[in-house]
Amino acid sequence: MQESALILTNGHFDSVFAKTTHGLVRGPSRYVIAGVVDARYTGQDAGVVLDGQPRGIPFFESVVCALDVLPNKPSYCLVGVATVGGKLPVSLRSDLIVAAKHGLTLVNGLHQLLSEDPELVLVATGGIVDIRKPKPASALQFWTGEVLSIPTPRIAVLGMDCAIGKRTTAVNIRNTCRKRGIRAEMIYTGQTGWLQGLKHGFVFDATLNDFVSGELEKAILACYEDTCPDLILLEGQSALRNPAGPAGSEFICSGGAKGVILQHAPLRERFEDFDCVIPPVEEEIELIRLLGAEVWAITLFTRGMTDTQSVAAACQIEEQCGVPVVRTLEDGVDRVVDEIYARVIA
Amino acid sequence: MQESALILTNGHFDSVFAKTTHGLVRGPSRYVIAGVVDARYTGQDAGVVLDGQPRGIPFFESVVCALDVLPNKPSYCLVGVATVGGKLPVSLRSDLIVAAKHGLTLVNGLHQLLSEDPELVLVATGGIVDIRKPKPASALQFWTGEVLSIPTPRIAVLGMDCAIGKRTTAVNIRNTCRKRGIRAEMIYTGQTGWLQGLKHGFVFDATLNDFVSGELEKAILACYEDTCPDLILLEGQSALRNPAGPAGSEFICSGGAKGVILQHAPLRERFEDFDCVIPPVEEEIELIRLLGAEVWAITLFTRGMTDTQSVAAACQIEEQCGVPVVRTLEDGVDRVVDEIYARVIA
Repeated sequence: MQESALILTNGHFDSVFAKTTHGLVRGPSRYVIAGVVDARYTGQDAGVVLDGQPRGIPFFESVVCALDVLPNKPSYCLVGVATVGGKLPVSLRSDLIVAAKHGLTLVNGLHQLLSEDPELVLVATGGIVDIRKPKPASALQFWTGEVLSIPTPRIAVLGMDCAIGKRTTAVNIRNTCRKRGIRAEMIYTGQTGWLQGLKHGFVFDATLNDFVSGELEKAILACYEDTCPDLILLEGQSALRNPAGPAGSEFICSGGAKGVILQHAPLRERFEDFDCVIPPVEEEIELIRLLGAEVWAITLFTRGMTDTQSVAAACQIEEQCGVPVVRTLEDGVDRVVDEIYARVIA
Repeated sequence: MQESALILTNGHFDSVFAKTTHGLVRGPSRYVIAGVVDARYTGQDAGVVLDGQPRGIPFFESVVCALDVLPNKPSYCLVGVATVGGKLPVSLRSDLIVAAKHGLTLVNGLHQLLSEDPELVLVATGGIVDIRKPKPASALQFWTGEVLSIPTPRIAVLGMDCAIGKRTTAVNIRNTCRKRGIRAEMIYTGQTGWLQGLKHGFVFDATLNDFVSGELEKAILACYEDTCPDLILLEGQSALRNPAGPAGSEFICSGGAKGVILQHAPLRERFEDFDCVIPPVEEEIELIRLLGAEVWAITLFTRGMTDTQSVAAACQIEEQCGVPVVRTLEDGVDRVVDEIYARVIA
């Protein structure tokens, strides 16, 4: 039986910092989600609050309340937020301690390692799993170039910014491919992918810089050898020109992705959390071309837009960029999969 | 008095893997270089072998021979090679053990940490300094954007590949600026910069990926606050499209460099150690433009070219790209400094 977990977002559920939690509520998830602790939504369903679809995941006011109400004690307590710089928000701390004292295993994807927190270590009899705990250089692999010789097409899901829906789009593309009989796999590159139970990947931003390309290669090769799929989707990280940590060329130059699905938020003018303007999407397409790949489709993150606005934006960008533009969550990604099918399967 | 060091290259002096040693022989250096251990050149002068200029740095056959001959025992023994993936070459091992047994402090810039090598730890009574020892996330800084508000121009010295002379060019530009009364500082980003005694910088490739931009920002801000210079040079790493680990956008997007000096090896067709073609230099200029900076000059790494060849290459590239092109080591970088002066000082 799949084990269950309680997620803590404590006041952050309705923010991009809770994107890990949103991914787990949408599924897939490594654990059955027994509930989410966020007092503001006590009694509501996390699926309904997220996107209107009930998923039988209740909100609780606190860990104590959750443990009181739930018929079975969850085995795990997950830190459900990913903050800039990876620090533990204060609002989660006391609930984490309560969960630890009740023997739940703490699972944490922040850079701030709970296993180095003396107070938590003392009470966490159920143990602590730090997903982002860096591996030493001796456990990491340098790039060899072997990945460039495998025949399976790699497609990178990149984005114009952080916290813009790259992983959700990648999961949707994978699922839609599979429904249509295309054996698609996905390489995760963040802690959420691991929490979602994906088999192949690594935590990109917690890897020593010199080994990012090698670990990406290793994950792709392992995926290829284990599953021999029709295509491999690569979950992108950050954005090519995000000043807080530009990333993405690894997927093209080192991972050998020839196609890119580009996630874009038409309303977002500045990079998440920073007063820096996001450059135009046409420039991003050209940048990707110079790096060695081609944008095959653009997928939209429409938060804050009315339906009319987002439909108009999709039409306008499609005309301007000459590739299919879809609203991932509203329209699904069938048109993206059509494009992928035409380019690499047909 | 500045302390002295013996460098080990053991068979690798005449290879790009010894670029750390080449930098220290050229200077500046944190330590007085007492000699280089590389049996092939025993008795010769390292400066003469490197570039024809005597520098009073003798080659020795072994550490034992060096300690026999040198009037004063050096305090340090440096690993003078930087291999792909950062593994210690076998040829250095026995000499490192001898040096350790004689009480020299081992100084190592490889990813492979000597402080985690039980055999060496046991004998190294003089201690071990691992320059590339990764810092934990708790000791690293995330990017804040503060760097974008300082007035001092930043100029990135990027390259078309690894091991192509970026650091040497950056040091030369800094020195030439200073001779002309321009207060130039340089941010190091590799272990050699630290070994050269540079004050501000960090080891880029041994940093957890998420914090590379923040550590770069921190180094630039510290340099600005400590020295308030006329300009700050940023030592680039790898190359924007190097498949083994693309890098460089950090200097532009996160460091705010508006100008780029691009180091190029006209004869080199493939990326160092890999069977991957280096794309054209004109594309690199366009890529840099899309990232937000402009190439102000191109500097050439001419190893393997005759004088006639390299002069012809410089002329041709200058005509083709429309920026000054100089052969760093042969011509000096005065024309590069003229260009910088005209753009940011005048």
